[in-house]
Amino acid sequence: MKSTKSKPRERENIVDILKKLKRGPQIITPKDSGVIIAETGLRSGMKCIDAGGGSGFMTIMLANIVAPEGKVYTYEVNPEFANIVKQNVKSCGLENIVTVKNKSAEEFREKNLDLITLDMKGSENVVSKAYDALKKGGFLCIYSPHVEQQKAAAENMIKAGFRHLKTIENIQREWQLGTHSHPHPSGVMHTGFITIGRKI
Amino acid sequence: MKSTKSKPRERENIVDILKKLKRGPQIITPKDSGVIIAETGLRSGMKCIDAGGGSGFMTIMLANIVAPEGKVYTYEVNPEFANIVKQNVKSCGLENIVTVKNKSAEEFREKNLDLITLDMKGSENVVSKAYDALKKGGFLCIYSPHVEQQKAAAENMIKAGFRHLKTIENIQREWQLGTHSHPHPSGVMHTGFITIGRKI
Amino acid sequence: MKSTKSKPRERENIVDILKKLKRGPQIITPKDSGVIIAETGLRSGMKCIDAGGGSGFMTIMLANIVAPEGKVYTYEVNPEFANIVKQNVKSCGLENIVTVKNKSAEEFREKNLDLITLDMKGSENVVSKAYDALKKGGFLCIYSPHVEQQKAAAENMIKAGFRHLKTIENIQREWQLGTHSHPHPSGVMHTGFITIGRKI
Amino acid sequence: MKSTKSKPRERENIVDILKKLKRGPQIITPKDSGVIIAETGLRSGMKCIDAGGGSGFMTIMLANIVAPEGKVYTYEVNPEFANIVKQNVKSCGLENIVTVKNKSAEEFREKNLDLITLDMKGSENVVSKAYDALKKGGFLCIYSPHVEQQKAAAENMIKAGFRHLKTIENIQREWQLGTHSHPHPSGVMHTGFITIGRKI
Repeated sequence: MKSTKSKPRERENIVDILKKLKRGPQIITPKDSGVIIAETGLRSGMKCIDAGGGSGFMTIMLANIVAPEGKVYTYEVNPEFANIVKQNVKSCGLENIVTVKNKSAEEFREKNLDLITLDMKGSENVVSKAYDALKKGGFLCIYSPHVEQQKAAAENMIKAGFRHLKTIENIQREWQLGTHSHPHPSGVMHTGFITIGRKI
Repeated sequence: MKSTKSKPRERENIVDILKKLKRGPQIITPKDSGVIIAETGLRSGMKCIDAGGGSGFMTIMLANIVAPEGKVYTYEVNPEFANIVKQNVKSCGLENIVTVKNKSAEEFREKNLDLITLDMKGSENVVSKAYDALKKGGFLCIYSPHVEQQKAAAENMIKAGFRHLKTIENIQREWQLGTHSHPHPSGVMHTGFITIGRKI
Repeated sequence: MKSTKSKPRERENIVDILKKLKRGPQIITPKDSGVIIAETGLRSGMKCIDAGGGSGFMTIMLANIVAPEGKVYTYEVNPEFANIVKQNVKSCGLENIVTVKNKSAEEFREKNLDLITLDMKGSENVVSKAYDALKKGGFLCIYSPHVEQQKAAAENMIKAGFRHLKTIENIQREWQLGTHSHPHPSGVMHTGFITIGRKI
Repeated sequence: MKSTKSKPRERENIVDILKKLKRGPQIITPKDSGVIIAETGLRSGMKCIDAGGGSGFMTIMLANIVAPEGKVYTYEVNPEFANIVKQNVKSCGLENIVTVKNKSAEEFREKNLDLITLDMKGSENVVSKAYDALKKGGFLCIYSPHVEQQKAAAENMIKAGFRHLKTIENIQREWQLGTHSHPHPSGVMHTGFITIGRKI
């Protein structure tokens, strides 16, 4: 019997659940997960791999979109983190959509994927394997806070055959509006760079 | 008989279609539509209204996510633009998901909505009506390029009962990575401000 | 007898002294004072008025440039702040260059000025007087953290006869360079807007 | 007989002259030259070296500040560019302040300098020599558009003995203020990175 939790109209909104979840220091933020979703055309029914990313926030964001027919395979090599992801996914009612594997991303065997997101050290080493696993038209998105990892990833993406590469960063400012409107004086200046490439 | 076009695995990726579509000067960009999707927890099955926004890119982005069971009602008062939206929606295979109405946003009658997005002059005047049309927990997102419209909208949102207001802007830079890594020297410095509020 | 402190080669570098000075919450930062200096062509021998700005950092920055022959007249209506400015100016060895007046900026009588900088509430009310006080080719720079004050100031500047208006903001990011190069994750997102206009 | 042009009150404002000068593609902008001036406490009477930078805009900005008693030695290895710098310096009436040398920056012999600015390929190779040429408390500022050159420069600066290193970038937005206030939609997203270090 399929859990009613996977019916989209009945699941609680993930934004309410995400607020309560345990979070590590490097959560992918809505400005970054959002641009990945919008740039790749992610939608219900798609099949994805997400690797790294600590607490599973990217996994949950992807699963929320691909549900109820799609699938996210999450690879997290650290057993403690893998457990946190599992709990967080369950809290969101997405346990039928997400399969968490406590393995290195280098071991994945899934094929015919629409999207692979990597937010982990050494993501540049999984690029070639990612290319094979994607269906034609599928996207690889690599996220990291540092220029050097993005360079290594982008270089390997070109070598592996990815095209239409685009590396972006989003600087988000929050505003206070009223009689004295101004951006908040301090805030997050940098989260990470995102490189998006496509198998064509 | 239901069109096969609405089956998500069979529709072409909207990012491929959007590139070919006719576009006006003020398309909402992936960095902005993405953050709306991520901040509101939009997902398959949800019901939305989108008003304004010229060529229908926001409508298509929302419809792509809420398909195949959800719904987007698009209000566009200009008959020529309404026609462009219809054509663009059809090009994306989303005509079963989107209903385009060549009416002012002030005339909508839909209820129990998950999300309303407004990208139009005078959006501050629709705020109270939007509040009534949303279900509990639903979001209103107002997008405009100018500080003054955002102020008027945010003020009316507070008055109408919206809470957890957040006004943001995303400054996106594209990078060139290689032996001489640098952000692109020139580009888009500003698209618009987004105010998100919630009916709680 | 003229103090040897005003000889430029003998004064200590202000950047060393500024670090030790008492500072209020709204110091004008080097990115903002620097752009004012560069945009106005400020140099040794020029005559300026600085009004507002709490601890005198802008005054000191201007005085440092216009010394040894130039002059800065600083208006600070709050007696406590005026005293802090005096002490800070003296600490920098610039007491022969700067005259601190514990008066409202609306009372200044100086004429034939090269530059007037205003960083105070109500600066829009001093604009017309500033126009008269500037020599031909002189600049007025208004700094404030809020959009509304800048609008009021800019509008009055146009009315008063100022031309070539330019309103800017500088978003400065500090970088960590090394094997993992990245902008600092958090920092100052906003200090203020600067409107520069010219008497032509 | 000393040229009257070097008397500060009699020189035309450089901002008026700079507008008319021939400029190459990579002019250092006021937001960048300004922050260098403000961060280093540059003032009348100081002695500087400027190397690279094509058309001499940085040289002129420095000379404008250090005049009438200070000095700028400009090194430009390209004879054509060196000639343009000479002409531009003369147009600004700063020919008594600036000495343009058509030589590589690696050949400079000046000592006891307050500031050295480098905006050229291979600036990382001049860092150690720059350290020796600066007086105690003097600053080295390296400007380049690319992350990699800044990394090489910063690394060599640490090795050479420079301290208090700070690498910054300024993102400047110009605003349109009025009834519809907004940042200009497009503009310069990136000019360069600035690394400032000090001989202590």
